[in-house]
This record gives sequence, structure tokens and C-alpha cells, in this order.
Amino acid sequence: MEITLDAPLDMHLHLRDGDMLKLTAPLSADFAGAVVMPNLVPPVAEPAQMTAYAERIAAAMDGREFRAYMTLFFTPMSEAALRAAQQTPGFFALKLYPAGITTNSEGGVADLAQAEPTLRAMEELGIPLLVHGESHGFVLDRESEFLAVYRRLAQRFPKLRICMEHITTAAALRLLDEFENLCATVTLQHLLITLDDVAGGALQPHLFCKPIAKRPEDRDALLQAALGGHPRLFFGSDSAPHPRCKKEACGCAAGVFTAPVALPRLAQLFAENGAADRLQGFVSGHARQWYGLRVPSRRVVLQDVPMPVPAAYRGFGQQVVPMFAGRVLPWSVKA
Amino acid sequence: MEITLDAPLDMHLHLRDGDMLKLTAPLSADFAGAVVMPNLVPPVAEPAQMTAYAERIAAAMDGREFRAYMTLFFTPMSEAALRAAQQTPGFFALKLYPAGITTNSEGGVADLAQAEPTLRAMEELGIPLLVHGESHGFVLDRESEFLAVYRRLAQRFPKLRICMEHITTAAALRLLDEFENLCATVTLQHLLITLDDVAGGALQPHLFCKPIAKRPEDRDALLQAALGGHPRLFFGSDSAPHPRCKKEACGCAAGVFTAPVALPRLAQLFAENGAADRLQGFVSGHARQWYGLRVPSRRVVLQDVPMPVPAAYRGFGQQVVPMFAGRVLPWSVKA
Repeated sequence: MEITLDAPLDMHLHLRDGDMLKLTAPLSADFAGAVVMPNLVPPVAEPAQMTAYAERIAAAMDGREFRAYMTLFFTPMSEAALRAAQQTPGFFALKLYPAGITTNSEGGVADLAQAEPTLRAMEELGIPLLVHGESHGFVLDRESEFLAVYRRLAQRFPKLRICMEHITTAAALRLLDEFENLCATVTLQHLLITLDDVAGGALQPHLFCKPIAKRPEDRDALLQAALGGHPRLFFGSDSAPHPRCKKEACGCAAGVFTAPVALPRLAQLFAENGAADRLQGFVSGHARQWYGLRVPSRRVVLQDVPMPVPAAYRGFGQQVVPMFAGRVLPWSVKA
Repeated sequence: MEITLDAPLDMHLHLRDGDMLKLTAPLSADFAGAVVMPNLVPPVAEPAQMTAYAERIAAAMDGREFRAYMTLFFTPMSEAALRAAQQTPGFFALKLYPAGITTNSEGGVADLAQAEPTLRAMEELGIPLLVHGESHGFVLDRESEFLAVYRRLAQRFPKLRICMEHITTAAALRLLDEFENLCATVTLQHLLITLDDVAGGALQPHLFCKPIAKRPEDRDALLQAALGGHPRLFFGSDSAPHPRCKKEACGCAAGVFTAPVALPRLAQLFAENGAADRLQGFVSGHARQWYGLRVPSRRVVLQDVPMPVPAAYRGFGQQVVPMFAGRVLPWSVKA
């Protein structure tokens, strides 16, 4: 069996920088492009930094065709500054982090009221707003507590395209259905796992991420929405490589590295649920439609031929452990 | 400031065996005694094994005064076998594990109906039943799902003393209040932490245990019940040493090692909440009263003099990381 995709996109990707970028960027090359997160140290907050980062990504891709949809770390910006960003090649959106909520987000937004003039200008200019939507509350409530903020944003800025990034709850899906100006990304792992997989047996650091995986009914709702072809729900891997030593040490860093396994595992998931024909929309079509993206056509064929997943990806002095490390996935990308 | 205790007891303790027993047993010696869990490999299920284990514990205590209240791993037993157990020196109770629910519980009870004749005989003989009360469900629901089993046991065996071990939820406390024949133990960590401390920031394997720490409102309810002097709520550390290599590896084992820090940290907790006079009941009096235990008097003085907690306790080729490793606790046991 085969599933043929046109120009699959990863709508939420961490590529890091330096040697980690060199190792991981090519591992996303089965995608035609990806929305690249700006939470480097320091964050990518200026067009010049963004351009330089895009060049480093292109260099790491080493000739592979790949469209990096670049984001700027949200800071208050004037309309002029936003216009300048918009005219910078590769620019796609602003990514808003509540301050201190995840990896390298210390410089994020502490008071959303101060962000309003920028949001108003973004709305006028048609610049999408991508949001890491978690409060600083109890770990299981952070996303649901943040939904009131999404609601207020969606109401106050009805023409602003707002993306609820990496949603993990059924409650977020219900909000998605309420507002036409909201979209959402969902990761591979949140379609598959619950907190049980992270901490129900032995503790599994390689499945630990933010937002943390939630309850079975949340996972089931996300999966049904993805398989059902929700037009405003997009695949975003949130693939987040950390050096092995930071994942397996005490105080493990948050993030699951899925870039190289995402398309095969998604193919398996959609095929075994009789939704193979909906994969194109989930990994490309819906996002292209909603954001009005023009992506060069690119044929990617997934086949039910096994893919052995290495215990780790190594190179440039880095070592990253992927999801399904050491296992065999029943689907693979056809060379 | 000082708090003077008489014969503090740890009503739920894992001492393991071999070199780990030799290392950890003396670290519980500030307690006058402890209820010792039977989940060794193989489990301590026969009086002869129990006697031999009690002798190894006494040897590890190396002359220190310490009463080991020994438990047998619950298996169906005839009344004659129960009588024989009851006449074995050191015997205290049977510990029931649902099959496969925690460390070394693979041989536990799969069908509670089969346990009923044994429970009936225990009720008649006055042998307490200690229970690891978790279902095989979603990690956060396991205790609350098991409450129906506790309820049924409490109703069917009204004279059986049933201990809900290491409770972690407000719901378990509510059930405790419903049935006079239920008691419960609670650990140090479940009075202090929530899932946030385990997985809200970086993942903290040394705070990972089963049952897993729950929500803030659960922790708060447990703390209020302990500080409030609930007469059927007893301190049981569930202190569970694992070799450092099994805690910090991928797939970390469940258990928090609190034996050497429990009394100082409890003294701090009760003192700072103005409940210093209730500590005696929580760590000794309530359990002695409810079970009718006669423990030799032993004066243990806690003082607000700092205790530096080592990064690890080492010996006999073993290395165990305690809770609060590398930190300084404001209270200590007076030598």
C-alpha cells in the first residue's frame, strides 16, 4: 500500500542552531517545508537575525529543497517594524510565548495587554499569530487555563489568524470549533500517547514534552479530529531535539524528537484508521488553504515497507534519541 | 525549638534486601519501628521467609533498637496458615497488591473474589489488611478507581482493619471518613508535592513514585488531614530506595527515598503550620491506638538545627539518592 502526498508541511518545528541544526535539519527533509520556531538563545526577534538563521538552515539542508517558514519571537513591534519583517524573505508569522513557559522562553510576554497594539497591527497586515498557549498553573491545567486568553484574542481580533500551537486537550478542540479565526497544530505524540505513557509505568524522559500529554479522552478527541479532516487542525511535529545527555539526566528537558519518524508513523496511523485519504489535508492541504501558502509541488510517497528507527541519530558531535528509537515502524518514506 | 516524640513509627517502609538492606536499614533507625513491606523477589509470602527476612533486618540494624512489623505478601491462605503466621514473632499484617501494579508485585491478586475466604479468616483472627489500592487504569485515576474496592471491602468485612496505603487523593480521605474500619497511611512527599514537582518543569525522577503525586487540591487535603490530627491517618514513608542507576536512567523506577529525611522534614512541616503538638499522633500515637500496638518507649528529639542532606547515601556497593539531596533541611534529629 502507498500513500502519495504533495508537499507535506510540518507546521511547528524546532531546528535549534549550530551542530544540532546541522544534524537535525536534514532529518526534516522529507517535508517540503516547515514553520521554524524562533526560541534560540538569544531568541530570533529581529528580521536580520531571522535572515541569518534562515541562511544557516539552508546551509544545513545542503542543497535539499526545503521551505523554511520563519517566525519571529513575539515582542512589541511598531507597524513599521512589522511591515519590514513582512518584506523580509522567508518571514511567516510571530510566535508568542508567555514568559518562561518552555525552553528558552524567558523573554516572552508577561502581560498580554501590552501586546495589543502589535496584535492590532498584525491583524491589519495579515500576519499570523502563533501562540504557545499555556498558563503558569498546575501542569495539567495550563492549556485549559489559557483557553480564556485564546477566546479573548479571537474575539478582540476577529481578522487575526491565531494558531493554538501543539494543542493537547479536548477543551482546546471545542474552542477551535467556536472561532473561525482560530486554527491549531497537533503533534504526532499527542495523537498517540497519554500521561500514562510518560509516567504510568517507568518514567519515560523521551516522551516528556510541554505541553505534557494529557488524558485518554483528550488523546482520543485529538485523534478523531485529525482523522476526521478538521480543516483548521494541522500537523505540527513540535519535534524538539535535545542532546541525549539532557534527556536522560535528572531534570530531563522537555521535548520529543519526531522529525524523522513523523511521516511514516502518521501514514500508519491514518491507514490503520481507514483515513489514508485524509492525510494530505492534515499534513499540508489544510494549512495551505488557511494561511494561503504557495508551496512548490513535491511528491512524497509513503509505503508500508518497514523502517528501522535507529537508537539515536548521531553527527556533528551531537546525539539525539528519536521517538520509537530502536523499534521498527511498519511504514516508511519511499526513496 | 524542639519537638519531643515518643517512639515514632514508619507505618510503610521498603527495606529491600542484601546490600541495599544493609545500606538503608540503619537510615530508618531514628524510628522506633516500621511496617516492613514484603515485595522482595520472590515476595515474602511464608512465615519462614518472613522470619529469615526479619533476622536479616535485625542484622542490618546492627544492634540498634528497632521493631520491624513484618508483613506477608497476600496470597490465599487457610485459617490454619493465618494462625501459624499470627504466632510467628514479628508478624503484623498481610499486604495485598493488585497483580503487577508496582515494584515486584507481579504475583499479586488478580481477582479479589478469590481473596474473600482469606479476608474472612483475617477478620476473625484480627489480622490487619494493608492494601496498595490502585487499579490498572489511567495513571491519575488509579487510586480513585480503586476506592470502590475499598468501599466493598469495608462493607463486607466490617471488623477487618483495612489500611489504604499511601493515599494521594482528597477522594480517598472522604472515603476514610465514611468507614470506621478503614485507616490510611500517607507519605512525606504526598504532603509536599504535586505532579507539578515531578513533571511541571524539568522531569524529576527522584520525585517519581507510585501512586504518582496528584493535584494541588489533593495535596492540600492530605496536608490538612495530617496537620488536623485525623485519628486514622498515619505516617508511612513508603520510602523506597532504588539504586541511583535505576532512578536516573531512561525508564526510571518508581519510588522516593525519604527514610533519613522524613522526621526532620515532618518536624519542619508541622512546626511551620503551628501543629507541632500533632506530630506525635501522626507519626506514632494514631497507629498505636488503632492497631493496639505496644511499642517500647523511646525519646526522639527533633530540633530546629540544620541538617545537610547528602547528595547520595553510599555503602555496600550501593548508592541511593534521597529526597532533598544536596539541600539543607532546617530541622534535624538531636543526637
